[in-house]
Amino acid sequence: MKTRAAVAFEAKKPLEIVELDLEGPKHGEVLVEIMATGICHTDAYTLDGLDSEGIFPSILGHEGAGIVREVGPGVESVKPGDHVIPLYTPECRQCKSCLSGKTNLCTAIRATQGKGVMPDGTTRFSYNGRPIYHYMGCSTFSNFTVLPEIAVAKIREDAPFEKACYVGCGVTTGVGAVTNTAKVQAGDNVVVFGLGGIGLNVIQGAKMVGADKIIGVDLNPSKKKWAEKFGMTDFINPREITDVVDLIVELTDGGADYSFDCTGNTEAMRQALECCHRGWGTSVIIGVAEAGKEIATRPFQLVTGRNWRGSAFGGAKGRTDVPKIVDWYMQGKIQIDPMITHVMGLEKINDAFDLMHEGKSIRSVVLF
Amino acid sequence: MKTRAAVAFEAKKPLEIVELDLEGPKHGEVLVEIMATGICHTDAYTLDGLDSEGIFPSILGHEGAGIVREVGPGVESVKPGDHVIPLYTPECRQCKSCLSGKTNLCTAIRATQGKGVMPDGTTRFSYNGRPIYHYMGCSTFSNFTVLPEIAVAKIREDAPFEKACYVGCGVTTGVGAVTNTAKVQAGDNVVVFGLGGIGLNVIQGAKMVGADKIIGVDLNPSKKKWAEKFGMTDFINPREITDVVDLIVELTDGGADYSFDCTGNTEAMRQALECCHRGWGTSVIIGVAEAGKEIATRPFQLVTGRNWRGSAFGGAKGRTDVPKIVDWYMQGKIQIDPMITHVMGLEKINDAFDLMHEGKSIRSVVLF
Repeated sequence: MKTRAAVAFEAKKPLEIVELDLEGPKHGEVLVEIMATGICHTDAYTLDGLDSEGIFPSILGHEGAGIVREVGPGVESVKPGDHVIPLYTPECRQCKSCLSGKTNLCTAIRATQGKGVMPDGTTRFSYNGRPIYHYMGCSTFSNFTVLPEIAVAKIREDAPFEKACYVGCGVTTGVGAVTNTAKVQAGDNVVVFGLGGIGLNVIQGAKMVGADKIIGVDLNPSKKKWAEKFGMTDFINPREITDVVDLIVELTDGGADYSFDCTGNTEAMRQALECCHRGWGTSVIIGVAEAGKEIATRPFQLVTGRNWRGSAFGGAKGRTDVPKIVDWYMQGKIQIDPMITHVMGLEKINDAFDLMHEGKSIRSVVLF
Repeated sequence: MKTRAAVAFEAKKPLEIVELDLEGPKHGEVLVEIMATGICHTDAYTLDGLDSEGIFPSILGHEGAGIVREVGPGVESVKPGDHVIPLYTPECRQCKSCLSGKTNLCTAIRATQGKGVMPDGTTRFSYNGRPIYHYMGCSTFSNFTVLPEIAVAKIREDAPFEKACYVGCGVTTGVGAVTNTAKVQAGDNVVVFGLGGIGLNVIQGAKMVGADKIIGVDLNPSKKKWAEKFGMTDFINPREITDVVDLIVELTDGGADYSFDCTGNTEAMRQALECCHRGWGTSVIIGVAEAGKEIATRPFQLVTGRNWRGSAFGGAKGRTDVPKIVDWYMQGKIQIDPMITHVMGLEKINDAFDLMHEGKSIRSVVLF
């Protein structure tokens, strides 16, 4: 079949909208019509050539929502017509990681996914007979895409695609870090470093579970108003004070119960750890650091009871937890609508990257 | 009253055995006749002048066992005749830390303890009218010492003092890191960096709870035989292989479930983290690093699911958990006898420091 898609033919070049050839789903695979996709910093990171493992030509995009149109042999968990969110972190429920019950980092198709191909080692996309590679196992910048069955989460049909797609990455990464990774409880004090889209979702996750103080830290004062909309109780601009850690320790009577780094800056990651409460405070790294950068601290910080952890895809098991987060949105427990600052057609997708680079969007969404 | 004690009059000088004056217990305090005390690396660290907060003249020693001889007004939890272990980490059961249920790091008397005095701000010891300071709230290198009630753990009376004293620091630090901090479970794979006294106690803790592989790492091949006595299943000498982390990942089919650093070396701490299993492996720092040294790693190690933690006094709540560990010894679940390599009278206490510095002892114990 044919599909319209935005192709990244090479790094540091705009995406090109073309008609591609798409092979149908093979054994254990599904064909999904993507109805909406968000544009995430990770797509830009790859397109900008910063990811040394980026593969071109490829179809980027990993934050989509759509409808199953066809299933390959052996597929039992979804059927044509089901509404789904593609999962860049799949959930096979059979590998050592899935069976451990201790992590969401399914390893079933990790090797092939990292190489831009389907589990059988081939790609379903091609252009003029030349293979076009998959991206993060999703490739949602295409109107139709093929995914392994274990990499789609079935969601309720009344959830609007242009909002639900954001659950495919940003919402789950932030909210899930609070509920799955940290397991923040009512009354806990929480600090969030970095008030971009992920930070806002951490904040609303903390609010949802009843956190007491929700302190936001950002160098950009314009973020304050945004973060307050989602539940931030206190704002700190590090440029306006002498010591972020000291101030947080004071505001929280000893330190944060949980802190979250959503900056990718390794110095902020250190502050996020060191502002945690002696004895039990836990810091969760979400942000992706520049290649080669390292985090550091004195071991005494850990020996006196602080915990340093990380979270990927919000610790969410995709097929199990993503549908729940969509439910929370539909039930009004979390907000998505105000975060979708721009909606556009596929032909405008390069504008979404520009808006992101200029810091003018929280989330842009492409509607097919 | 008078008491015989080994006094550290100044740093880097041998201890001197003298007769001191000791004031009896005040409100909330108890007088304990120390029957036996271990000599720990932390005592040597302070005596060698490496602890910038070391106070002199003082009575060192923090790993003792003895008998309550007198109690001050208001003391209700122990009475004369009770066998006790002094606690450098007290358990008041009333401060924010104790009440949190999430840490053993009681803060009730932290400020005064750090200054070498009792909670009322004064010292009970004096010599020719000159005050002699307390150490770690214990000062077990004295035949009699005074302690806050919240800093003694009542233990069973059939436990021999010259073995039970080791539970006052080394045994609890190692075994407790396994049972309280990490909560290792049967079938887990465990790696222990550094096979000194603490490392051996981590190993026997891991064996007690049913760990599968218990891998020991040490530069000194003579440690192998010792560690095997306590349950080590595999030994790695980093000098004999190319990459410790790679080898551990191979031996454990993906990485350790739990690793413990008992070296104090920040490079070993990094290896201990990085040899942990993706998704859930937890590394616990026990060793005390040199002043100013920092730990470092790539944040990716945490984002992909490894946890970095620390443990002080084995995460043990002193009055609650220390008596249990004495029970485990009496029940034969853990061993202490083979670790007590030297026993001597107080007059030979400086020999114990020499043996430790020469690496010839696991634990020396002074009997009064």
